[in-house]
Amino acid sequence: MGNELKQFMNEHVEVVNHALKNILDQEQDIPKNLYDAMQYSIEAGGKRVRPLLVLATLKDLNIHHEDAVMAAAAIELIHTYSLIHDDLPSMDNDDLRRGKPTNHIVHGEAMAILAGDAMQTLAFDVLANLPNTAAKDQVSLIQLLAKASGANGMVAGQVLDIEGEGKSLTVEQLQTIHVNKTGALLSCCIEFGATFANLQGEHRTAIEKYANHIGIAFQIQDDILDVTATTEQLGKNAGSDESSDKTTYPMLLGLEGAKKQLAWHHEQAIQALAFIENEKSYLKQFADYIVQRSF
Amino acid sequence: MGNELKQFMNEHVEVVNHALKNILDQEQDIPKNLYDAMQYSIEAGGKRVRPLLVLATLKDLNIHHEDAVMAAAAIELIHTYSLIHDDLPSMDNDDLRRGKPTNHIVHGEAMAILAGDAMQTLAFDVLANLPNTAAKDQVSLIQLLAKASGANGMVAGQVLDIEGEGKSLTVEQLQTIHVNKTGALLSCCIEFGATFANLQGEHRTAIEKYANHIGIAFQIQDDILDVTATTEQLGKNAGSDESSDKTTYPMLLGLEGAKKQLAWHHEQAIQALAFIENEKSYLKQFADYIVQRSF
Repeated sequence: MGNELKQFMNEHVEVVNHALKNILDQEQDIPKNLYDAMQYSIEAGGKRVRPLLVLATLKDLNIHHEDAVMAAAAIELIHTYSLIHDDLPSMDNDDLRRGKPTNHIVHGEAMAILAGDAMQTLAFDVLANLPNTAAKDQVSLIQLLAKASGANGMVAGQVLDIEGEGKSLTVEQLQTIHVNKTGALLSCCIEFGATFANLQGEHRTAIEKYANHIGIAFQIQDDILDVTATTEQLGKNAGSDESSDKTTYPMLLGLEGAKKQLAWHHEQAIQALAFIENEKSYLKQFADYIVQRSF
Repeated sequence: MGNELKQFMNEHVEVVNHALKNILDQEQDIPKNLYDAMQYSIEAGGKRVRPLLVLATLKDLNIHHEDAVMAAAAIELIHTYSLIHDDLPSMDNDDLRRGKPTNHIVHGEAMAILAGDAMQTLAFDVLANLPNTAAKDQVSLIQLLAKASGANGMVAGQVLDIEGEGKSLTVEQLQTIHVNKTGALLSCCIEFGATFANLQGEHRTAIEKYANHIGIAFQIQDDILDVTATTEQLGKNAGSDESSDKTTYPMLLGLEGAKKQLAWHHEQAIQALAFIENEKSYLKQFADYIVQRSF
């Protein structure tokens, strides 16, 4: 990772974690076991890639908005709820996440489901209560998040992912899974930044193109890491794709083929950023990071 | 049930079901198994008490709003998602709902969880896309629904309900469970109507008082019916409260004591409606129906 991006991430990950803590602090009157289960997964860490992408987009567009961090945190709440539910025994049945036992292992299945449910609601609650955002922009953000995370986005991806287990998929089918499961919410981050910046027209189209390509690149690198990295590096079980009988890019294209695809999507993403005037574009650095990361 | 309310409900239940069908029709491109699971629970029927309460509130306030039915349907989506998740094996483990096998029995646990997740998202999506509502009112509706259905409302109630199983609760604790689990979303229906009607001040306070009392009355009657009605009448297993070791009002107060409480909350609800000018108040008739219903 370049030093500039590293510094940006280190600085802003704290800001995001602080916002998440503030959001949770507002919930202290809720039943203790529910609070604990929500806190457990929210504070389990993670790289906060999604909120940082929102903030990087604003930075590249030279916009500061007081509510951006809270809105970015709302996306992280959706991401975190999805991880809790995906890990459940009836879904991916994972016992390790971000280096810790998964939520249902610690808090039980019922509480894990309910913590996820409440976290989804909380994400929309946060967006509907942004103090410095015009109502029409709040509505736009909620539309974007609902579209990205529901039956036309993230949840669809999880359904297709489960249904694809044990089947031989084409590259196109695999891409459809990931465009929905991971890509939609990553794109939503860029769209949040573009909404705060009121970005329109061809620049909006260009930044959406960037978002689509880094979404796919992110997943290809995830698949490559599942083959090449260790459980310790990943904080989740390495090789879990193969053991759960999931199709991956390296399986379909070979490791070298997957790396070529990765490079192509990276290149497309960078090209889409041509209009960004900020010379040390954080979105460009993010694209570089996504293809180079080792965990 | 009075003939007028019966006619109102018969007419409007069709309108609500039509709106729900329209909402679902927009989702036809989603994965088929997900669509089927969502459709299964949405079309399983139910009395549609919540959306009808929204519409009755508007009627009593002499307001017509083109988006009211869609907003009311959004509340029903939240209610339906909560039933799917509550019925799961790790929660209440129910196999019968509205006279049919529960969602996870038919569609499997993973799909039931995901259908519920997607239905929650869809509710907020619907509110964020109401075509004839000012953005500030959309934001108000989303705030109300998020507050009523999340960790400070419905989900909290479900947590407390699960935790209360097998314990001897006080009337106050039992009430806290139900104010959250059932009352918050019922109140939200009245608040939706009040928001569309832009109701403020003491009339707003009064209608909120009505909402609180019918919420509790609804649950007391539910508990009474669980003791006195048959499985066929209820469409779910009668006596399930006792068999699942749940505290009920009749257990704590006796059947007669529970009926007295029911009558008191009914009376309070009716008194709160004094300001309503509509002589044949539908909200009053709803209060009567809630305490007299036999299923």
